[in-house]
Amino acid sequence: MTAPEPGSLRVARRNDDIQPFHVMALLARARELEAQGRDIVHMEIGEPDFATPEPVMQAARAALSLPSGPPAGGGAEVTHYTPALGLPALREALAAWYRDRFGVRVDAARIVITPGASGALLLLTGLLVDRDQQVLMADPGYPCNRHFVRFVEGRAGLIPVGPDTGYQLDARLLAAHWGSDTVAALVATPSNPTGTLIDPAELAAMASFARAQGGYLLVDEIYQALVYGREPASVLSVSDEVFVLNSFSKYFSMTGWRLGWLVAPPEAVPALDRLAQNLFLAASTPAQYAALAALGPQSREILEARRKSFATRRDYLLPVLRELGLAIPVEPQGAFYIYADCSAWLARTGLADSMALATALLENAGVAITPGDDFGCHRATHHLRFAYTTSLERLRQGVERLADFLGA
Amino acid sequence: MTAPEPGSLRVARRNDDIQPFHVMALLARARELEAQGRDIVHMEIGEPDFATPEPVMQAARAALSLPSGPPAGGGAEVTHYTPALGLPALREALAAWYRDRFGVRVDAARIVITPGASGALLLLTGLLVDRDQQVLMADPGYPCNRHFVRFVEGRAGLIPVGPDTGYQLDARLLAAHWGSDTVAALVATPSNPTGTLIDPAELAAMASFARAQGGYLLVDEIYQALVYGREPASVLSVSDEVFVLNSFSKYFSMTGWRLGWLVAPPEAVPALDRLAQNLFLAASTPAQYAALAALGPQSREILEARRKSFATRRDYLLPVLRELGLAIPVEPQGAFYIYADCSAWLARTGLADSMALATALLENAGVAITPGDDFGCHRATHHLRFAYTTSLERLRQGVERLADFLGA
Repeated sequence: MTAPEPGSLRVARRNDDIQPFHVMALLARARELEAQGRDIVHMEIGEPDFATPEPVMQAARAALSLPSGPPAGGGAEVTHYTPALGLPALREALAAWYRDRFGVRVDAARIVITPGASGALLLLTGLLVDRDQQVLMADPGYPCNRHFVRFVEGRAGLIPVGPDTGYQLDARLLAAHWGSDTVAALVATPSNPTGTLIDPAELAAMASFARAQGGYLLVDEIYQALVYGREPASVLSVSDEVFVLNSFSKYFSMTGWRLGWLVAPPEAVPALDRLAQNLFLAASTPAQYAALAALGPQSREILEARRKSFATRRDYLLPVLRELGLAIPVEPQGAFYIYADCSAWLARTGLADSMALATALLENAGVAITPGDDFGCHRATHHLRFAYTTSLERLRQGVERLADFLGA
Repeated sequence: MTAPEPGSLRVARRNDDIQPFHVMALLARARELEAQGRDIVHMEIGEPDFATPEPVMQAARAALSLPSGPPAGGGAEVTHYTPALGLPALREALAAWYRDRFGVRVDAARIVITPGASGALLLLTGLLVDRDQQVLMADPGYPCNRHFVRFVEGRAGLIPVGPDTGYQLDARLLAAHWGSDTVAALVATPSNPTGTLIDPAELAAMASFARAQGGYLLVDEIYQALVYGREPASVLSVSDEVFVLNSFSKYFSMTGWRLGWLVAPPEAVPALDRLAQNLFLAASTPAQYAALAALGPQSREILEARRKSFATRRDYLLPVLRELGLAIPVEPQGAFYIYADCSAWLARTGLADSMALATALLENAGVAITPGDDFGCHRATHHLRFAYTTSLERLRQGVERLADFLGA
């Protein structure tokens, strides 16, 4: 074999299937425009605009003030590794949180602390998915999900969903698409990008359907507590035979700390422990100490006030986007997203698709919005995702600019 | 299909190949004995006994004191996500560190910040290894390496190594084992578990051999600066066409922060960026701010003093273990490990293998040591790994207990 040209790179085939997020290019362009002095309203960003609550910051600083770490924190010093499954005190605190907040009994032994919900997804695909096996998921959906499955040589079975099922999978769709190579179905409630929820009875039906096939329902509850006009719920109230993904990123405003967790059936924990030992050793120790305070009463007050802010923003944005001609047939009840059919805007502007539209809105209106392409294929070119992760004032400015641009 | 029994779990086949670490069972037993009041000398632990240096802790506390984060830190607020490739300021600081410390020019654009070296290994296997393709590595070696390759459905090609090559691969071994499905060879210098180094000229020869086959040499420099009686070096001084894994865990005493980095050929960075966006979004932001201080002059003084402590410990432990009858034919010059052939101890005790020996030493002598089985198959049952991650005084106590147990 002759030596390859310098600078040539042969990569594994999976890399052809792992697309960049279109929003990253838009974000980079937005930063360029800002560097030129343009003002951009950001409605594309998938993380809360709020900083981590001060009680959490304070707890982190306090833990980091003791060189050998807090002795009562569960045995791990604050700058050393915790056990792979996580700090015992944090696992217990989460068990208490499920009990107090959702009235559901979850043994701390079933809770695995992970480096973000990303770490939980990595464990789950590694645990469950053999090569060429399939995980069913909704299209549109969170794009990384299909890439995690592809990463371990599995296949994502994308099921087109629309307004009729609230942009969600249901037991009927699982039955229609479950094949001999299917090992799991992954749902998110609330969903990114649609903000819609799944009814507990439907979740229970899906969980038992999956078990009856010898597989599992995986439930992404990353946006669990960010629901509006209702109280948060967990699938764990209706089924124990599921895997639940969760995170301190969104409701707890701790994105940068990279901390999440997984609730697993007890029989899965030893294998998850082995995978965690190998794949990441443990989640960040300082983050785990900080998170203890995130579950406390002081943080709760702050976080519930933020939840109200998100509700106010949604209540403002939803009707005005509809007035501007976007079709939003199912009311988003959670997360901080509105997924809108922009066919009318395409018709009005003569632009071909949502990517062209998002580009035009950024360049000409100074508003950054994520095109549907980042969430799948199904009618993606006719959808935009709006994130209300900026202040009400900025949202109003954004909407005014959109109205001007559209001549509305 | 009938529903499976409750509590039954079908897992992906790769889980059968991902063994638990034997040392975890030993460590759990050690904790049990300690809970019963026994004193255990820990010579099994693969992380520094030192806490993170105070200047790093202080930098972390300072960053966490500003709710909106340090404005000059590269654009990311301290509790929000950084770019997937890492905080620009940290990438620049590492480039400066390579220049000042090793006299080697590494463009910051080639440096990818990862959640521990584990995150770097995940990126590399995802980037390079297709299903059934092979990565060559030494046996004995760091056990997670082969599991990362297995995780993405690749195969670890374990090459038995011994004293004749310093327990390391060399260009001759690569030539002998490189097959049509081989895409990379992974070496570690210094090595875990053997503490041995690879000569720069040999690294250069391996790197160009791998490139000539269309593959890559991957170099684990996690223990890079922990070398004794010599100055640290980097493969980047002799080759640019390699991937280098590194970490803030060991030399910088930052295990619990979970922060590492990767130096890649420039053409690989866009694909690594896409993988990082999908697999972990970004490394911990507070950890990245803390790490900026780890590279500063104040920390360096502390870390170099610790390096001297490790050297003193090695200089004590190496001759006394030899006196006790262990065979250590190649002087370990780095990391904090001594890999010893314990055949004489097996003969003296009548025990069958190093696992039985490690168990007996824990139960009867109160000394915890890692059995060779955790590092591969090749003569593993006749080896023990000693870690000098505890004080000189404790090492002396441990050695006395070993001598008593052996009747030496």
